[in-house]
Amino acid sequence: MTFLYDDPERFKDDVIDGFAAAYARYASRVPGASGFVRNGGPRQGKVSLVVGGGSGHYPSYAGIVGRGLADGCVLGDVFTSPSAEQVYRVARAADGGAGIVLAFGNYAGDRLNFAAARERLIAGGVDTRIVYVTDDIASAGPGEKDKRRGIAGTATVYKIGGAAADSGYDLDAVERVMAAANDATYSYGVAFGGCTLPGRKEPLFTVTDGQMEFGLGIHGEPGVRSAPWMPAADLATALVSSLLEERPASADGRVAVIVNGLGATKYEELLVLYGHVDRLLHEAGLTLVLPEVGELVTSLDMAGCSVSLTWLDDELEALWAAPVDTASLRRGAPSGFPSFEPVARADTDDHLEVGEAASTEVSRQAATTARQVLAAMTDAVIENEERLGRMDAVAGDGDHGTGMVRGMKAALSAAQRAEHSGIGSVLRAAGDAFGDRAGGTSGILWGILLTTVGVSLGDTEAVTPERLATALRDGAETVQRIGKAQVGDKTLLDALFPFVASLESAVAERRPVAQAWAQAADEAVRAAAATANLVAGIGRARPLAERSLGTPDPGAVSMGIVLTAAADALKASDTCNI
Amino acid sequence: MTFLYDDPERFKDDVIDGFAAAYARYASRVPGASGFVRNGGPRQGKVSLVVGGGSGHYPSYAGIVGRGLADGCVLGDVFTSPSAEQVYRVARAADGGAGIVLAFGNYAGDRLNFAAARERLIAGGVDTRIVYVTDDIASAGPGEKDKRRGIAGTATVYKIGGAAADSGYDLDAVERVMAAANDATYSYGVAFGGCTLPGRKEPLFTVTDGQMEFGLGIHGEPGVRSAPWMPAADLATALVSSLLEERPASADGRVAVIVNGLGATKYEELLVLYGHVDRLLHEAGLTLVLPEVGELVTSLDMAGCSVSLTWLDDELEALWAAPVDTASLRRGAPSGFPSFEPVARADTDDHLEVGEAASTEVSRQAATTARQVLAAMTDAVIENEERLGRMDAVAGDGDHGTGMVRGMKAALSAAQRAEHSGIGSVLRAAGDAFGDRAGGTSGILWGILLTTVGVSLGDTEAVTPERLATALRDGAETVQRIGKAQVGDKTLLDALFPFVASLESAVAERRPVAQAWAQAADEAVRAAAATANLVAGIGRARPLAERSLGTPDPGAVSMGIVLTAAADALKASDTCNI
Repeated sequence: MTFLYDDPERFKDDVIDGFAAAYARYASRVPGASGFVRNGGPRQGKVSLVVGGGSGHYPSYAGIVGRGLADGCVLGDVFTSPSAEQVYRVARAADGGAGIVLAFGNYAGDRLNFAAARERLIAGGVDTRIVYVTDDIASAGPGEKDKRRGIAGTATVYKIGGAAADSGYDLDAVERVMAAANDATYSYGVAFGGCTLPGRKEPLFTVTDGQMEFGLGIHGEPGVRSAPWMPAADLATALVSSLLEERPASADGRVAVIVNGLGATKYEELLVLYGHVDRLLHEAGLTLVLPEVGELVTSLDMAGCSVSLTWLDDELEALWAAPVDTASLRRGAPSGFPSFEPVARADTDDHLEVGEAASTEVSRQAATTARQVLAAMTDAVIENEERLGRMDAVAGDGDHGTGMVRGMKAALSAAQRAEHSGIGSVLRAAGDAFGDRAGGTSGILWGILLTTVGVSLGDTEAVTPERLATALRDGAETVQRIGKAQVGDKTLLDALFPFVASLESAVAERRPVAQAWAQAADEAVRAAAATANLVAGIGRARPLAERSLGTPDPGAVSMGIVLTAAADALKASDTCNI
Repeated sequence: MTFLYDDPERFKDDVIDGFAAAYARYASRVPGASGFVRNGGPRQGKVSLVVGGGSGHYPSYAGIVGRGLADGCVLGDVFTSPSAEQVYRVARAADGGAGIVLAFGNYAGDRLNFAAARERLIAGGVDTRIVYVTDDIASAGPGEKDKRRGIAGTATVYKIGGAAADSGYDLDAVERVMAAANDATYSYGVAFGGCTLPGRKEPLFTVTDGQMEFGLGIHGEPGVRSAPWMPAADLATALVSSLLEERPASADGRVAVIVNGLGATKYEELLVLYGHVDRLLHEAGLTLVLPEVGELVTSLDMAGCSVSLTWLDDELEALWAAPVDTASLRRGAPSGFPSFEPVARADTDDHLEVGEAASTEVSRQAATTARQVLAAMTDAVIENEERLGRMDAVAGDGDHGTGMVRGMKAALSAAQRAEHSGIGSVLRAAGDAFGDRAGGTSGILWGILLTTVGVSLGDTEAVTPERLATALRDGAETVQRIGKAQVGDKTLLDALFPFVASLESAVAERRPVAQAWAQAADEAVRAAAATANLVAGIGRARPLAERSLGTPDPGAVSMGIVLTAAADALKASDTCNI
């Protein structure tokens, strides 16, 4: 849906007013015309590139007026060619005396209007050439390139033409290089959903739910085939393989790539698609030059995307790479900062990479035990998932059980993946995964707890009972400091601190570690149950409204549950380390 | 809807793969972590800015890693804080030895994880500061700025901090200036519709149809109030007036402005809104510095937008304006092109502006007649709208009647608006409006016809019968040349050429102009009717399949109708000119 508008009839004019206000540093409005010229007007003796078409495709076309790209743009109503008179007026305003190239995507209305404007310009003594872009391979067969529509490939062709004009090419040369760029440019797109015109309730067109339309045009022109939704990897294969079929015989393997979004299909999605496109093009032996992933030619809020390839030679590559400075597309190294030298890095930094740090045999043995403990903890939260959920639903949103299960499962599989690591790296990987996946504050704090214990234990030294107790003390204190809660606030700390205290005492008494842990876990379970009796209002971590008297805190209870499961696993473990 | 994905569980990782492949020129992946550092790694002795948060907000945060902005970014799952471990790893990889600023929007999970990472960094000897952004005025009252969420204002605060770090500020100074930037930054947004997570069918949240939600958060956090849809002008007033209420006492009136789109609310819409925002801020006496209109902080495909103001002093202004070179935000004049001088323009160029060219009294009188003629033509197409539609429905899409009415109405009102112009400018304005509004090929050709006649008649000389006939001959030939049709192809030319020929003969015979025109119009009507008898297949303008034997061409018929109406108007006209 289009939501931001005033009078839909004046939409184009309002867009132009807004652009003129926002980007006066790039472009100036042409008086009496729906269009812009580059800020400061045309340049003496420079060929002028004037682009245009219907509105609704921003940043095409106002967003690409500026140094290194277009000298002027002319805008029609939404999805409607600008009139010949408008094209003529903007072109006159953009005329620098060295001739004009009028460029547009290949649509019937644009061809008529730009051709009529060209006649008027020539009659007035302005040498004017026309280049229309025909990149959409879905719209006509390979033998009929001249009949193809212009879609996102317009961005590459205009970029190359604009760079040529700003480099001082004469009119013949700009026309030649733009024609060459168009011959070298091939795009293929897919649509998932239609766009709505300003002021309308219904979309201009629709795509059946669960389907995608290959080759659907940027104004809803019919596609070439429907297909059920497919993963991004398969879609990339479909798009790229069709594009590669049209690789020109002369192409040496260098290619400019654009993955273009049509409006509602967003950057992250385009990046996912690009990852596959990049892989497929590399598999085809190609060299990718300055890819752009984003929105260069949109279609209001249409859902869909396209891939464009431009086969480069030395000249086209240099022009594609040339600097540009417009409201939307900017390239070129900024200057004006002091220069800093890169840091020479030691790649052995053991804080940096989990699993690749040096570990000792004794620490790797402890890691095996840790994996067994994590497996037992995971089983225990799975078994208690519903119970924890019910308990959390009394005062919270009821997701504590599912969050703990998600977190523990992620932690366990991360620990299993770090198969050759010491215990420190294993617990860091587990804590990292827990923190990333569990969600909620308790997920984050559990992640911090596991990671801190891992950092404390490290990857080299044996895990003595004393070191284990110290590591857990570190973990509990870090969680407390970061979470800013106190014992008695009805949080997991209410079970964790009694556990650590009891463990420390048992270790001081030289009890075997499994026994010490079991005793401490019992203490944690008792303390967790006791949170049901805590008086509300003394806590700082949670507002009063979220508390519930008479129910134990689910975070403390789950802490007790997993510590108990860990005790059982330690008892069963046959390693002497821990 | 989110359509491009593979395994939804791996969405973040796939996005990271894609970004790494596309933008290796800006950022490098941190091994073993969900994040990036600036290409080439950290710089010796430079403070490092590390930003981050959940995924789903691109270009935040990978898109803003690069020179003049962030040194590193860390990404969590969609709308989920990255874990402390991830933050720690990226920060270590981004460490240049002069300290690190960790910056993020104010959300509970991010605060916990970044704080935990900071502890680890400090424990490892890396001086680390935290700046969290609190710009969303909807999320807490003016007295509780520290509790506010971070939304699009993060972009300004990070930009300023990144420029400071790249300018050589030390750690204290970068922290200070970012805190000052945050204190000076206020945002307010509105949502129209929810986003869908990858792999889900239902949106994460919805906004009631026809309603908008002020203050709704970028992850669907509840808004502060609902309101019925309102035009962009009213929305701008609502947003800007709330922001101006919080203008800091110290602000001197300079302000950086961002109009940010959340995903599905597109550029043209944002520009429409910006036009009003710009006006309102100017009315408040403010000086706007380098506004940006676009997508800086998105929320997948959420529909909505926000306005952010950052109140600038000399230091903040310089940092906001400093060069930057990242995948998404780039600033700074490109170099490497030859320099061209601006063209010195004569502002009196009479081809450039309709209505402002010098006109004579005799031409202005002719313009009055032309307006009467256009009014009569408009009435005639309105009267025949349905009939023309039915005729067009036989072989076309049935919109010829509505298109002609829309075009003639637009032409007439443009002619009426050009009230002090000569006949040339009046007809050019009429043709321009016709071409812009009518739609379809006949709309374009009518636009070209009227404009060409206007150019031929000009704004100074009297319209003699001879000049009128010549102008119409020019018009008909231009339409033929541009449209590439021939007489006999069943187009409007089949009526227009006989009309012109007959008019020329009558003028040669010295008939009065009204009489000559009437005679020629009769000829046009006869010729239009005769198109029903034309044999299909001789035409070049339309494919055989679109023709229908036995039905007159609607374009030729409407030409006959309006020329006849014009004849009646000329007869009734009391001006001697024409």
